Amino acid sequence: MARDVYRVNMTIQDDPPTTRPYHHGSLRAALLEAARERLGEAADAELSLRELAARVGVSVNAAYRHFENKEALLLELATTGFDTLHARMAAAIAAAAPAPVERLGAAGEAYVGFALDAPALYRLMFGRRGRFDAHPRFGESAGGAFRVLVDCVAAIREQPADAPEVLKASMAAWSLVHGHATLAIDGYIAALPASHQPTVREVVRCLDVAGC
Amino acid sequence: MARDVYRVNMTIQDDPPTTRPYHHGSLRAALLEAARERLGEAADAELSLRELAARVGVSVNAAYRHFENKEALLLELATTGFDTLHARMAAAIAAAAPAPVERLGAAGEAYVGFALDAPALYRLMFGRRGRFDAHPRFGESAGGAFRVLVDCVAAIREQPADAPEVLKASMAAWSLVHGHATLAIDGYIAALPASHQPTVREVVRCLDVAGC
Repeated sequence: MARDVYRVNMTIQDDPPTTRPYHHGSLRAALLEAARERLGEAADAELSLRELAARVGVSVNAAYRHFENKEALLLELATTGFDTLHARMAAAIAAAAPAPVERLGAAGEAYVGFALDAPALYRLMFGRRGRFDAHPRFGESAGGAFRVLVDCVAAIREQPADAPEVLKASMAAWSLVHGHATLAIDGYIAALPASHQPTVREVVRCLDVAGC
Repeated sequence: MARDVYRVNMTIQDDPPTTRPYHHGSLRAALLEAARERLGEAADAELSLRELAARVGVSVNAAYRHFENKEALLLELATTGFDTLHARMAAAIAAAAPAPVERLGAAGEAYVGFALDAPALYRLMFGRRGRFDAHPRFGESAGGAFRVLVDCVAAIREQPADAPEVLKASMAAWSLVHGHATLAIDGYIAALPASHQPTVREVVRCLDVAGC
């Protein structure tokens, strides 16, 4: 936060007077929001900080004060994407019936819903692990989202979350919702006759995480 | 086939004398092979027929006689990719123990193995459904590969392959292996401690296709 204040102060001093005023950290948020919008229109390879700066009405130098380069901005988008996914699953679980199996179904539904709402962001989150992996915040956020599934599986199996069997069954659960989300984004679910399209709940019900 | 002969004859007549001689349809295969190799190095957006022609040592006009444009070549790659996936799953099933659950496990293992052997091809096969879908051969090949899983599920459930419950459970099976394959390609499986990495068989065993 202190760093953001400093950056915004510099922005106010240095930018040409035509630049729109951005309060305290809000330029950073505005750039991320513009990138999220832009992601829906173009491949991430085509994003540029220059264009995003123009979109939000600031100089490219002002944008560089918040993000070292495009890759840093994409990393931040992917990281906050996992935080949002985490929050959406947690909210769905809080609103679900208390039975652990129902909670896993609710989490899976929220997971696929997130992917369908923001397919380009979802692809970014999963497509660059190799490049983002050196950044601890990315790993923490991705791991935090995964842990929601792990906790559901641990509750169903009545085992500790760090038991190898729990983690293996959680990987199966993750594979299932990730595969379903990806097939849905890519149009493979909608291509089926309506009567044959499974709901996310129906698909999750095919998992026997207690017995595997 | 007759069409290929015609095309190759034209190639022999028209191409400059420095062009390498290609027999009967083999230029088409050589271009596809070069594209498969190139896919592993670059995003498909960066492929060009011109560059592929140069790689295999023919003029760009010779390449255009086999593929109208780059998109047509990518469509052919994706279509034959599904044929290969189909063949690999069928071979794995033929070599597996006869119990239907074992056969599903063998098919899932072959599926993920295919994706890990050719990640760029696998991504291409799934990433452009919208654009490839108008081509009946693509749909037939993708559907043929999916039908292998459907047949395994139908055998496990002892129901006809076109029963809605079979197709829904098959979509769950497909989601699971597709998700596992994608997570594996993107490095999410290898990132786990070795003792926590599930095998494909273990993941498939978490599916209860008979009971869902």
